[in-house]
Amino acid sequence: MKPYLKEDEWSIIEEGFDQEKHEISESVFSIGNGHMGQRANFEETYSGETLQGSYMAGVYYPDKTRVGWWKNGYPEYFAKVLNATNWIGLQILIDDVELDLNNAKVSNFVRELNMKEGYLQRTFTAELTNGHQISVQATRFVSVAMKEIGAIEYQITPLNFDGHLKVVSYLDGDIMNKDANYDETFWDQVSESAEGARASVTVKTKKLDFVYSSMKETHVFHGEDSIQASSSDTKPKYAESSFAAPLTKGTATTIYKYAANVTNRDHDKNDLLDAARTVLDKAIHKGFSDLKTDQAKVWSEKWQDSDIVIEGDISAQQGIRFNIFQMNQTYTGEDARLNIGPKGFTGEKYGGSTYWDTEAYCLPFYLATADQRIPRNLLVYRHNHLEKAKENAGKLGFTKGALYPMVTMNGEESHNEWEITFEEIHRNGAIAYAIYNYVNYTGDKSYLGELGIEVLVEISRFWEDRVHFVPDKGVYMMHGVTGPNEYENNVNNNWYTNRIATWTLEYTLYALDYLKDTDESLHQKWLNDLQLKGEETAKWVEIIDKMYYPEDQDRGVFLQADNFEDKEIMSVTDLNSKHLPLNQNWSWDRILRSCFIKQADVLQGMYFLNHEFDIETKKRNFDFYEPMTVHESSLSPCVHAILACELGYKEKAYEMYLRTARLDLDNYNNDTEDGCHITSMAGTWMSVVEGFGGMKVRNDQLILNPFIPGQWHSFSFKVVFRGSRLLIRVTQDTVEVINETKQEVDVVIHGETYRINANGILQLNH
Amino acid sequence: MKPYLKEDEWSIIEEGFDQEKHEISESVFSIGNGHMGQRANFEETYSGETLQGSYMAGVYYPDKTRVGWWKNGYPEYFAKVLNATNWIGLQILIDDVELDLNNAKVSNFVRELNMKEGYLQRTFTAELTNGHQISVQATRFVSVAMKEIGAIEYQITPLNFDGHLKVVSYLDGDIMNKDANYDETFWDQVSESAEGARASVTVKTKKLDFVYSSMKETHVFHGEDSIQASSSDTKPKYAESSFAAPLTKGTATTIYKYAANVTNRDHDKNDLLDAARTVLDKAIHKGFSDLKTDQAKVWSEKWQDSDIVIEGDISAQQGIRFNIFQMNQTYTGEDARLNIGPKGFTGEKYGGSTYWDTEAYCLPFYLATADQRIPRNLLVYRHNHLEKAKENAGKLGFTKGALYPMVTMNGEESHNEWEITFEEIHRNGAIAYAIYNYVNYTGDKSYLGELGIEVLVEISRFWEDRVHFVPDKGVYMMHGVTGPNEYENNVNNNWYTNRIATWTLEYTLYALDYLKDTDESLHQKWLNDLQLKGEETAKWVEIIDKMYYPEDQDRGVFLQADNFEDKEIMSVTDLNSKHLPLNQNWSWDRILRSCFIKQADVLQGMYFLNHEFDIETKKRNFDFYEPMTVHESSLSPCVHAILACELGYKEKAYEMYLRTARLDLDNYNNDTEDGCHITSMAGTWMSVVEGFGGMKVRNDQLILNPFIPGQWHSFSFKVVFRGSRLLIRVTQDTVEVINETKQEVDVVIHGETYRINANGILQLNH
Repeated sequence: MKPYLKEDEWSIIEEGFDQEKHEISESVFSIGNGHMGQRANFEETYSGETLQGSYMAGVYYPDKTRVGWWKNGYPEYFAKVLNATNWIGLQILIDDVELDLNNAKVSNFVRELNMKEGYLQRTFTAELTNGHQISVQATRFVSVAMKEIGAIEYQITPLNFDGHLKVVSYLDGDIMNKDANYDETFWDQVSESAEGARASVTVKTKKLDFVYSSMKETHVFHGEDSIQASSSDTKPKYAESSFAAPLTKGTATTIYKYAANVTNRDHDKNDLLDAARTVLDKAIHKGFSDLKTDQAKVWSEKWQDSDIVIEGDISAQQGIRFNIFQMNQTYTGEDARLNIGPKGFTGEKYGGSTYWDTEAYCLPFYLATADQRIPRNLLVYRHNHLEKAKENAGKLGFTKGALYPMVTMNGEESHNEWEITFEEIHRNGAIAYAIYNYVNYTGDKSYLGELGIEVLVEISRFWEDRVHFVPDKGVYMMHGVTGPNEYENNVNNNWYTNRIATWTLEYTLYALDYLKDTDESLHQKWLNDLQLKGEETAKWVEIIDKMYYPEDQDRGVFLQADNFEDKEIMSVTDLNSKHLPLNQNWSWDRILRSCFIKQADVLQGMYFLNHEFDIETKKRNFDFYEPMTVHESSLSPCVHAILACELGYKEKAYEMYLRTARLDLDNYNNDTEDGCHITSMAGTWMSVVEGFGGMKVRNDQLILNPFIPGQWHSFSFKVVFRGSRLLIRVTQDTVEVINETKQEVDVVIHGETYRINANGILQLNH
Repeated sequence: MKPYLKEDEWSIIEEGFDQEKHEISESVFSIGNGHMGQRANFEETYSGETLQGSYMAGVYYPDKTRVGWWKNGYPEYFAKVLNATNWIGLQILIDDVELDLNNAKVSNFVRELNMKEGYLQRTFTAELTNGHQISVQATRFVSVAMKEIGAIEYQITPLNFDGHLKVVSYLDGDIMNKDANYDETFWDQVSESAEGARASVTVKTKKLDFVYSSMKETHVFHGEDSIQASSSDTKPKYAESSFAAPLTKGTATTIYKYAANVTNRDHDKNDLLDAARTVLDKAIHKGFSDLKTDQAKVWSEKWQDSDIVIEGDISAQQGIRFNIFQMNQTYTGEDARLNIGPKGFTGEKYGGSTYWDTEAYCLPFYLATADQRIPRNLLVYRHNHLEKAKENAGKLGFTKGALYPMVTMNGEESHNEWEITFEEIHRNGAIAYAIYNYVNYTGDKSYLGELGIEVLVEISRFWEDRVHFVPDKGVYMMHGVTGPNEYENNVNNNWYTNRIATWTLEYTLYALDYLKDTDESLHQKWLNDLQLKGEETAKWVEIIDKMYYPEDQDRGVFLQADNFEDKEIMSVTDLNSKHLPLNQNWSWDRILRSCFIKQADVLQGMYFLNHEFDIETKKRNFDFYEPMTVHESSLSPCVHAILACELGYKEKAYEMYLRTARLDLDNYNNDTEDGCHITSMAGTWMSVVEGFGGMKVRNDQLILNPFIPGQWHSFSFKVVFRGSRLLIRVTQDTVEVINETKQEVDVVIHGETYRINANGILQLNH
């Protein structure tokens, strides 16, 4: 698809109204604040194709599954992100003709997502069926400073007439999920009220007892004159206030709508309306303009920590900022009960909120750009689900240990294809790895003794139970798994899974030793609490020692799984391009039999355990697997980009970077109307910082190995590291590191260690 | 479950009404005639748990699938056996109280399926809520002689009162499939009529345009006095006639209901009512008693050819006759468009009508017990689907050849799990093997040149395209298959699949040579029609030559698939019995990783290609695989029983026999309420004839190697072979072969050849 968005450093801009792209734009222009989010639906009625979407973080529904139930141990439910009360709605009638861009002549249409200040704005001129022309400017945001508040300013200026405006400002809680498995409505009525300009709707989920109150107040001004509500009304799950206002040619009539959206996740369910009232009053007291100023301020702080600047490539600049913006819209790390859904607040596809994407791809972004407690909360989230993960292992017949779910909302498994749910168990390794990653990056080893060790031990126990010993060969093996490459299912001895399993055992033993060395009583407490005996850890040592790893000695590469060498080895370039993407053109068995790889698998191991392999080993494996990789997961190119950078494959690195950077802006996968690919956006950030920047942390030192694509003048990024914030700027000739904080810091650049003083600057040629 | 049926040589008998077992009985007591069938539902209203089921052979519905659609190449539909117009219904009101065994006191309840004469009879005494006691005898059958006719005699005798009877005799076409994926109704209204005692309902399927007319006439007699219909009525998809009759204590009031059930599969859709009228008139002219006499006569002929007599074990006798009866009820071989559904006419579970069961398990029964054209029609059925099988291969991306579907109704694939649909391709081999089996048994080699060669060549082409060459090892392999053991999925080099593939190539080359030697012009015609070139057959020779077969040299066994030797090898006896059946207790991944085998896999190859392996090889493989086999497919024990017989494992053979013989009568799998396991019934017949009888045909000779289980006095079976019919009777001491025909025949018994003259008897000690 040809790009339809205007290039701009700080905003996403659509000029001209293209109804066919409207649902894509609804996804791309979504706004969110970690607590709630809203697709870029129009406030006024729109009778064209649209996917209305308002989402409240952590509010979900266990939708009865349609698949898999006939196999023992399958989850009965798939937890769906819940589409909830529409709080943005404004019905606009102009001399009794309803404003609806599906029926009006639209011109001067501009939609802008201002990422710098965190708001969505739309301006257009519409000629209605009665010939009346109006210009409209609609601005809205969900407040980061007041997370339960959404605010709208909607300005109508008549261009060729004087007349009458009727506004119906409503809350509509009678909402269905587009992806409901049995066309069920998930919300039940609780109560509605409407009096004057204020109205509220409370609804509750049919299961799980989530209660959600939305309360709004609407202010209407003709020029400076305030207009009172003319009437109000309710029906089940719905409430409205109506206003009648004059329209004067050339004078703006302005509607302000403030909505408080509160749930019983944060308040007692009996106090919801009070809670909504309190926060709504506060927001109204501040007023739209001040709220918007606050919003710009908070976003400015976010950019302060996480911005990436690319000079000389405005398209790349826009792409990377969009990715960072969406990451920050989706997850703020304030609430350890939340996680990073694959579509964030931009759509409802996939269901569930948490995949291994969080640990494998998102964590590094928050480690490097946010306060330490924010990535830590991602770890705590999994600790909170430990009991459920143990239950999950039990359901599958394991006698010990924890198996974290493939997809979850509350810790229970909700994915439903056996080859994934039951077999793609490497996810457990990523959850252990995230603990290492956090400790390694932040140096906060106290987390191990506090919560980490418990998760590590239970995951290690799972691996112990999951491997089996083959006496004839004297080795441990792991049969029947699906690796990160989901284009092979139910294989034996996936190299990555075997290795991440033994790595978990190694790291768990390390963590136990660390506790023993540093806090014997804490160590003893955990041994007791976990009933961890010497035989158990001895068994882990034996498994580490005797694990089997498939290798192709002739080629000098690790084998993705047993028998991989017997496949017909081909390169993606050998394929007629009309066969791509394979998942839309090949039958599943053909995909499985082929050598083609959906996403990094052996190479995922080379990325995670990067320091364990010499450069030649990495090169041989990259050279073998990269040409077979079709990157039909949005999570794939970033790992390839990072390794390509390390191996000096500059062209390949830039090619891989381009595949992620503007995935949604350019709708590469032709599915952005379902929502944006949030978790893969973190991969784009990784491509720049860990790829082009070559950033890693090893032995408590920040390491940089920067290189700059030839297409760019410069790029710069910020990282927080052990209390310092550094701005790293790379040009074609120089590397510059600016310490923006008062704490001196050592940085290793291209192998040399440099000390950068408080507020100091280091500049090197390269 | 404890057996609840009375033992009897010729009948299935239930004494006493057990509502909890009613749905099981509805399956077990089903009646059918190859054209239509009917579960043993009550004629009168029954408000308890029931699965109403009336089925017309070949009438089906493409129900939109719930699974698999997200994978490329999946079938969108699953063809369902259609539950159709209820033609048996009689509403019975006695002094205005409705007869309903759910609300009455029931005594003297006896249900009998008379297998010798082919009818269902039920007698009972009921005391209604008003204290009236009646005795009822209801008899019904679907006529084998007049395949579109069903007939009911329903006799009510008041025991303690005089009163009034109202009978509403109806046809109800407003029927839903229990297994409809989206609770859809599949039938649309066409027309209804009712006049006096006669009524009709015509309905059509919402898709595929099957039109079905049911026409009935009801006769009511009080003693000898005929009662006229009092009224008639229709509503959409429904028609009824009502009768009012006196009830006199001690005098029977009798209702006869004759129904003609005709479809546009056999008649022009515009002539359906005429066709129904014609056949109905004919049936009424004959009358119930003569129809029933004819039925007994036709069944007597069927038993003449196919009976098995077991002396000294009445339970085994009843079991084997039930299996033979159901086979003959399900498929008569008259109509090459039909096949043998897994539930026959006894339920709607599984959908589709044709699995590889037909070729692998059912064909031998019809070969040995029916006229040659009947098994031949099973082959023609697949020939008729050849174009669809080629399309199916094309849909999965193959450039040549035919892949027959896993499950089908019209030749299109309708199964929906990727590991089966796409991967369980050994089914193609069974379809080729059936041609061999037919030619080998009947000696009718003309079939090869007529139709067989075309199917063989296209299946061979599929195998050619499906294997791949591994240059490093110089072998052909077949990756990504599921073998007959569905407890391993997506394996590489399943021994059975690899071998049945090369066997197909060998047999196709043999068939081509045979044509060349016997009819050069026919040979040339096929080469032209099939555009079969020398390079292609040369490639087949190379594949035969270089196919890889996994073996465990140390154990001297073929490996079920690559890496099988790396599994944890255990015996079923090592398992705690509470884990069985595995498919209800173990998660799918655990089943897949385990060594446990659902049904014969390597051993299926030993059975099919029995003559290729010496006894020691068979023994080693049997000894290795049998202890790991859980027989959780009803198709498994028969193959094990036959091999156990050959290997002299008498106890094991009898144990395996018992697992199939009374599967449904004793509801072993606890699922008979869904319908009977029709195709596995053929396996029971195989266990006796090919197992205990040791019957096979080799080099145009009939071979017997009989042995008799110690529990039996004798067993005898009949086989038709090359124009002779032989009765083989085996006692503990003797083998007796009686030639019931005028043609002399040679039989090889325990390695010695004997000639048996026309109507001659051979008796041997053993």
